[in-house]
Amino acid sequence: MTSPIVHKLADVQTSKLGNGTRIWQFVIVLPGASIGEDCNICSHCLIENDVVVGDRVTVKSGVQLWDGLRVGDDVFIGPNATFANDIFPRSKKTPKKFLATVVETGASIGAGATILPGITVGENSMIAAGAVVTRSVPPNAIVVGNPAKIVGYVDAEKNKAVISEKAALALGAQSTMVAGVTVHRMPRIADIRGSLTVGEFDRSIPFTPKRYFMVFDVPSKETRGEHAHRECHQFLICVSGSCAVVADDGKNRQEFILDGPDMGIYLPPMVWGIQYKYSADAALLVYASHYYDNSDYVRNYVDFRKLVGAEI
Amino acid sequence: MTSPIVHKLADVQTSKLGNGTRIWQFVIVLPGASIGEDCNICSHCLIENDVVVGDRVTVKSGVQLWDGLRVGDDVFIGPNATFANDIFPRSKKTPKKFLATVVETGASIGAGATILPGITVGENSMIAAGAVVTRSVPPNAIVVGNPAKIVGYVDAEKNKAVISEKAALALGAQSTMVAGVTVHRMPRIADIRGSLTVGEFDRSIPFTPKRYFMVFDVPSKETRGEHAHRECHQFLICVSGSCAVVADDGKNRQEFILDGPDMGIYLPPMVWGIQYKYSADAALLVYASHYYDNSDYVRNYVDFRKLVGAEI
Amino acid sequence: MTSPIVHKLADVQTSKLGNGTRIWQFVIVLPGASIGEDCNICSHCLIENDVVVGDRVTVKSGVQLWDGLRVGDDVFIGPNATFANDIFPRSKKTPKKFLATVVETGASIGAGATILPGITVGENSMIAAGAVVTRSVPPNAIVVGNPAKIVGYVDAEKNKAVISEKAALALGAQSTMVAGVTVHRMPRIADIRGSLTVGEFDRSIPFTPKRYFMVFDVPSKETRGEHAHRECHQFLICVSGSCAVVADDGKNRQEFILDGPDMGIYLPPMVWGIQYKYSADAALLVYASHYYDNSDYVRNYVDFRKLVGAEI
Amino acid sequence: MTSPIVHKLADVQTSKLGNGTRIWQFVIVLPGASIGEDCNICSHCLIENDVVVGDRVTVKSGVQLWDGLRVGDDVFIGPNATFANDIFPRSKKTPKKFLATVVETGASIGAGATILPGITVGENSMIAAGAVVTRSVPPNAIVVGNPAKIVGYVDAEKNKAVISEKAALALGAQSTMVAGVTVHRMPRIADIRGSLTVGEFDRSIPFTPKRYFMVFDVPSKETRGEHAHRECHQFLICVSGSCAVVADDGKNRQEFILDGPDMGIYLPPMVWGIQYKYSADAALLVYASHYYDNSDYVRNYVDFRKLVGAEI
Amino acid sequence: MTSPIVHKLADVQTSKLGNGTRIWQFVIVLPGASIGEDCNICSHCLIENDVVVGDRVTVKSGVQLWDGLRVGDDVFIGPNATFANDIFPRSKKTPKKFLATVVETGASIGAGATILPGITVGENSMIAAGAVVTRSVPPNAIVVGNPAKIVGYVDAEKNKAVISEKAALALGAQSTMVAGVTVHRMPRIADIRGSLTVGEFDRSIPFTPKRYFMVFDVPSKETRGEHAHRECHQFLICVSGSCAVVADDGKNRQEFILDGPDMGIYLPPMVWGIQYKYSADAALLVYASHYYDNSDYVRNYVDFRKLVGAEI
Amino acid sequence: MTSPIVHKLADVQTSKLGNGTRIWQFVIVLPGASIGEDCNICSHCLIENDVVVGDRVTVKSGVQLWDGLRVGDDVFIGPNATFANDIFPRSKKTPKKFLATVVETGASIGAGATILPGITVGENSMIAAGAVVTRSVPPNAIVVGNPAKIVGYVDAEKNKAVISEKAALALGAQSTMVAGVTVHRMPRIADIRGSLTVGEFDRSIPFTPKRYFMVFDVPSKETRGEHAHRECHQFLICVSGSCAVVADDGKNRQEFILDGPDMGIYLPPMVWGIQYKYSADAALLVYASHYYDNSDYVRNYVDFRKLVGAEI
Repeated sequence: MTSPIVHKLADVQTSKLGNGTRIWQFVIVLPGASIGEDCNICSHCLIENDVVVGDRVTVKSGVQLWDGLRVGDDVFIGPNATFANDIFPRSKKTPKKFLATVVETGASIGAGATILPGITVGENSMIAAGAVVTRSVPPNAIVVGNPAKIVGYVDAEKNKAVISEKAALALGAQSTMVAGVTVHRMPRIADIRGSLTVGEFDRSIPFTPKRYFMVFDVPSKETRGEHAHRECHQFLICVSGSCAVVADDGKNRQEFILDGPDMGIYLPPMVWGIQYKYSADAALLVYASHYYDNSDYVRNYVDFRKLVGAEI
Repeated sequence: MTSPIVHKLADVQTSKLGNGTRIWQFVIVLPGASIGEDCNICSHCLIENDVVVGDRVTVKSGVQLWDGLRVGDDVFIGPNATFANDIFPRSKKTPKKFLATVVETGASIGAGATILPGITVGENSMIAAGAVVTRSVPPNAIVVGNPAKIVGYVDAEKNKAVISEKAALALGAQSTMVAGVTVHRMPRIADIRGSLTVGEFDRSIPFTPKRYFMVFDVPSKETRGEHAHRECHQFLICVSGSCAVVADDGKNRQEFILDGPDMGIYLPPMVWGIQYKYSADAALLVYASHYYDNSDYVRNYVDFRKLVGAEI
Repeated sequence: MTSPIVHKLADVQTSKLGNGTRIWQFVIVLPGASIGEDCNICSHCLIENDVVVGDRVTVKSGVQLWDGLRVGDDVFIGPNATFANDIFPRSKKTPKKFLATVVETGASIGAGATILPGITVGENSMIAAGAVVTRSVPPNAIVVGNPAKIVGYVDAEKNKAVISEKAALALGAQSTMVAGVTVHRMPRIADIRGSLTVGEFDRSIPFTPKRYFMVFDVPSKETRGEHAHRECHQFLICVSGSCAVVADDGKNRQEFILDGPDMGIYLPPMVWGIQYKYSADAALLVYASHYYDNSDYVRNYVDFRKLVGAEI
Repeated sequence: MTSPIVHKLADVQTSKLGNGTRIWQFVIVLPGASIGEDCNICSHCLIENDVVVGDRVTVKSGVQLWDGLRVGDDVFIGPNATFANDIFPRSKKTPKKFLATVVETGASIGAGATILPGITVGENSMIAAGAVVTRSVPPNAIVVGNPAKIVGYVDAEKNKAVISEKAALALGAQSTMVAGVTVHRMPRIADIRGSLTVGEFDRSIPFTPKRYFMVFDVPSKETRGEHAHRECHQFLICVSGSCAVVADDGKNRQEFILDGPDMGIYLPPMVWGIQYKYSADAALLVYASHYYDNSDYVRNYVDFRKLVGAEI
Repeated sequence: MTSPIVHKLADVQTSKLGNGTRIWQFVIVLPGASIGEDCNICSHCLIENDVVVGDRVTVKSGVQLWDGLRVGDDVFIGPNATFANDIFPRSKKTPKKFLATVVETGASIGAGATILPGITVGENSMIAAGAVVTRSVPPNAIVVGNPAKIVGYVDAEKNKAVISEKAALALGAQSTMVAGVTVHRMPRIADIRGSLTVGEFDRSIPFTPKRYFMVFDVPSKETRGEHAHRECHQFLICVSGSCAVVADDGKNRQEFILDGPDMGIYLPPMVWGIQYKYSADAALLVYASHYYDNSDYVRNYVDFRKLVGAEI
Repeated sequence: MTSPIVHKLADVQTSKLGNGTRIWQFVIVLPGASIGEDCNICSHCLIENDVVVGDRVTVKSGVQLWDGLRVGDDVFIGPNATFANDIFPRSKKTPKKFLATVVETGASIGAGATILPGITVGENSMIAAGAVVTRSVPPNAIVVGNPAKIVGYVDAEKNKAVISEKAALALGAQSTMVAGVTVHRMPRIADIRGSLTVGEFDRSIPFTPKRYFMVFDVPSKETRGEHAHRECHQFLICVSGSCAVVADDGKNRQEFILDGPDMGIYLPPMVWGIQYKYSADAALLVYASHYYDNSDYVRNYVDFRKLVGAEI
């Protein structure tokens, strides 16, 4: 790797440039900025003082990195993507503190996207071209639109499985691509008086629950649940409407659509679980093997990956 | 009580008339009929041969009791109420066997009602005036309309309790008018990501379930569930939509409307339970303390009343 | 008119029979009953003791008139029409007081109809064949079905006017068949921001209101409003959904369908007004020329007819 | 067959009684009435003068046959079934002409049913117990409720076939139980731009159409279409919603539910066709091999049966 | 304040630069442009000839100000915000006249927003990041999305009051944060026949109306009504659905949600009123103390502020 | 036309610049790029190597043309419009092949629009300001929003004709602005049994069909059908819901809204037809004069224009 290369038409005032980094025409970098190794800063960009950029980052043309921005390694920032650091800007009225925006390792921001201030763009996530991101984006999430909504998780979509009677799932439990996770079809008995489905704890469901909880009235754009448990087993049934569950063992990630009360999914301890795409009438019933214990939750995906020994 | 009195304008051919029974003008009773004590058969009625009428029965004017009909004690049959004994009648084509209709003890049939053949009108039930009864009527049920639908249970309606947040039910368990039955309000936590409710087995729910079952897609006119359990405890939650539960300890009867996922009702063993008035989107979740065992069910209300020692 | 004629196969025990009245085969009339002049009581009827029947009444076959019934003049009772006098009948449990049913002058009850106890069947009303009447019927109303609902008013339907833009009503006021009643189309201005309609008191509306009131959330089967005012002027607009107004000056009766916020109807004092056929989303706005004064209401149609000098 | 038998407690004034006919207690028959052979008139009935009753008719108790009624052979009239002969009865105001009611050969009227005046109850039809019949009933129809609606056709229901993709119908034409009638599944091609179905005249559809017509906005209670064609071929597709088609070759009758735009049914000439059970959004597309010609229609079922040589 | 500072890498051709204004790298300003005092023009901007910029304006990087643009004082224009001056651009086909865009005093335009040509961005308004503004924006409005819709008014949202029964508003009038404006809860009487609400002019409503008008069929994205009256009093009731009213006395601004027919708001003369957020089924009824008089309207917010003596 | 003019503050490395072309400040053009005659490349743009730009193209400020982009003649690209050439960008992970984007002759791209990679922006189309274009855009289409949807076709909207009963179209055929295209109103007969419409082939429809096809379940954002036929005649009826048809003879273009089953449009051979704006419940029935023949389709608008001899 060579020393950094700065085009002669650029105005670079910092000395904190990593090896292999290239800076092109009409770029301005203020003296306080720090840029890692092997980055590519394309033409017509501006990088202010209180900005830290990691290694192997690409910044396409027409982008400004304002004071307060932190950019991890391996990040892609598309052309004319736009950041802001003041949530309610008024000319000449500087806020007491600029809201810091964080773009985590491996994230990509599409062409022409707009990122509101104070947001964290999660590890490995993908912001679609033209998206207007108004809330923090979880790790691996794919977000689209104005305002941006989560439409999927990287790699999970292509492994999608619909857990419904229509999919002709056999009775009982089947394994999945994610370690330890099983999907279950319970018996369903229908007659003219209506339908009935049944599950037996310790028999058709792999543990004895100590409690249940139900999630409902979820706005469709919301993700509700994004964590792993250290010891608690869970069994999820969408008793009304439909929702999606993404399960992730640190190595494989798969999305499941639950759309019938006779369909369930078992999440063992130390599997990262996400629930989203709730239909308007969705009600999700969860059986848990333990009473609620806050210390049982792993809420940070990076921590989770470490705990399961995933390579990063 | 005096011997039976037959009006001189009646044509009574049987001798099986109980003491105290009166028969009025233009009534015909064929020779095979048997009528109990203290009955009142008003004008313009016809009673065929293969008919048995209990004690203290009132038959108002314009009623025909056809071959095959069995009428219990203390029954009221309103004026111009109409029975039939052939489900698809064609002239001169007698069915192989007439369908027997049974009117159980204490039932009342309103003025102008029509009762299709082969039906059992249950103990103590009430058929509204003008109703057209196309299916058997459970004990204590009140039925109305054409076709007749169950709209309530005798005495239960006036004790009705709506088990909903709107009714400002306090958190935890409250007792009811029915012995051992408790209603429960579980915690409900709402934020912008939606709502959550939770129940803990052995703590907020009075037993450890061995299984759950769910009832859904119930046509609104249907009653689904009408029995008691000998040993099994149950806990019912309407997780979507609403339904009504009638609980009956043999002495008191009360109706409960379940209309929120954070509301539950506990039915101990040896309480008669009925579920009906399902809304179109209703899904009823039931936790049970035992695995399914057919011998645990008491399906006949008369038997149930005996088992709990209720006076009749 | 001749003296009453009683068939020899009838069992008539009263002497209170008016001239010209005929009683046919297999009829029973108990000694306390009173029957007016020129009546016709067809075969197979029963008339108990505490019954009063007016003049020119027709009772077709298969009808029983139970204790407590009062029948006005010129009433028609169709074949197998059925009355009751106990709202929750149980054999041998006589209620403290039988509910009295009143059939007012000029009413007709169709073949096979059922009339629940305690009901008043209003003057000149028409009960359809097979109807099951569960609530009192206002004067002139036509009721149909099980349970019976008001579907129109005698003579009003055939004069029906739809007061809507679709009917191409001209701007301003038009007279109607009912004395003093006018229908109004107000200006309606529409642009892409929505629509606007306007009315000016004393100019486009014929009085200055002292108050307004609004009627809403009306179950569709309900009639809301059935009276005249002595002095108060009213102006009605259906601001949402639709409803029907029947106006009656004692001589002419006309029905109007209000289905647009730019349509109004003016009811002067001493016009009988009825509102019904509310759509589920109907909201009716009424301007009144006087503050509320209970003594301004004429609530009884017979009284109203007298006050306006209508011939009966 | 013996001569007619009249019970001594009956009041029979006619001499027109067929052999084998029996008349029971408290029945009245006026002098002008005519009753055929082998009838059974049960107790408490009234038969007026201008009434003609066919052979092998059963009239159960509590029925009145009013002036103007015509009853065919093999008719069954259930207990307390009620007829009327005045559509808007007022006491003492006889209509100029009583509306004649006709009950055709082989029809049955259930217990407690009410038949409005001026109605024809079609050959072989079945009126359910408690029904209130407000419009004429076609041959073979089964009607239920208040007001009565057609719910099926005798014998057709049990041969019902659902012509939908869900029923896994194979592509192309299949024969049915009715001579010459075929059901067709057309290709259906779906992609993310929507779905497409196609039919080729002379190839996948067995004739070249000269015209098409479409039926829509049909109230759900209506039957639209009840006739046969002498020469015209028809091909029916329910392009939106669903409807039922009954086809009848004079010997076999079958009901088909059309519920997809890629499903069709071919009706050759001289097949009786009925369309009913339209869903609210139903649109039925019909291809016809001939231009409209009124003389091509056979509109009377009895005529149709003769034309196809069906035995009666 | 110092004289203007122009970076040596900028290409500034005008001399009309106010004191204290700074112009940064790679900015182009054409000779005809006029820029006020104390402005900050960040890197990579272009300012054409026919452009006037006020004092204390901030223009962030990547912005072009095209011919025809007028920018008031204290305006903020976020990074990569994009203007246009041709509504239907075709290459080499210059329109006869470029559409002028006006950004009024105190307005802010968020990062990455797009402003269509010919639009006025009102005084003190706030354009959200990423918004695409297709229509003029009223003073103080907050707009969001693509296309941009009004979601609130600056400062009004945080004072929001829901005027509904659910909010347990007491009967009668209450004062608000806005001078002279009162909110009213009228009586509401409900029974099984429906609900009724009533208001009395001069008593429960503080004036005698000369007219009413109703607003309905308003597309949800529309603001309908944005003005003050010099002399006319108004009283607003949302008789169906719901809408929002913003009231502003020049000093305080508050938003009210009207969602029940028994809720009203009184706007005295010289209060600025805005109505928006109409639900699909909303109908707003307004009583006005005067007949319509165009000269009574104050339609410009800046004029209004002057008339009420508000300091700017 | 003069030789190309390059501003001294630009960094232009190619020699392939057409006469009359101007390049402004801070623009970068890499050595491989090719730019036609009479273009205008405004300030702050970047043009990479593998880019071909036609004649008379306008590129406004802040635009980057990435490797792989092909721009036809007479194209307008608005300020800050943003292209991309990697559909799932990750930093330092170059795709095997950059997706080529094509902007065809005469197209315009609005200010601030974002164009995803691999897309063709069709001849003469119009991309609205701020649009995010995620799929290829057909010739003449106008697209708006995020994601961009077709809302109209250039010139067609202003000639729009609603072909509905409400528009009081006369029975029979009328000509349109497009050569050979006729609109048809068929008879519609309504009675209480529903409605019926009819068309006769060779009589009211100008050809004999060899086949029909139906299009349904079309997502509302989709355009379904965009081509001409060489020999095949078509007749279109929207049998349920509504849709829009654009017809184009190469000279005139007109849009028609079909919203009733009794309305049709005839498209002769060699007319370009487009169907879009399907309502959710739309079903479009098409009669075709020929069996399906792929070689009969003209699917490319440029080819179509040549075939009909339209001047370009």
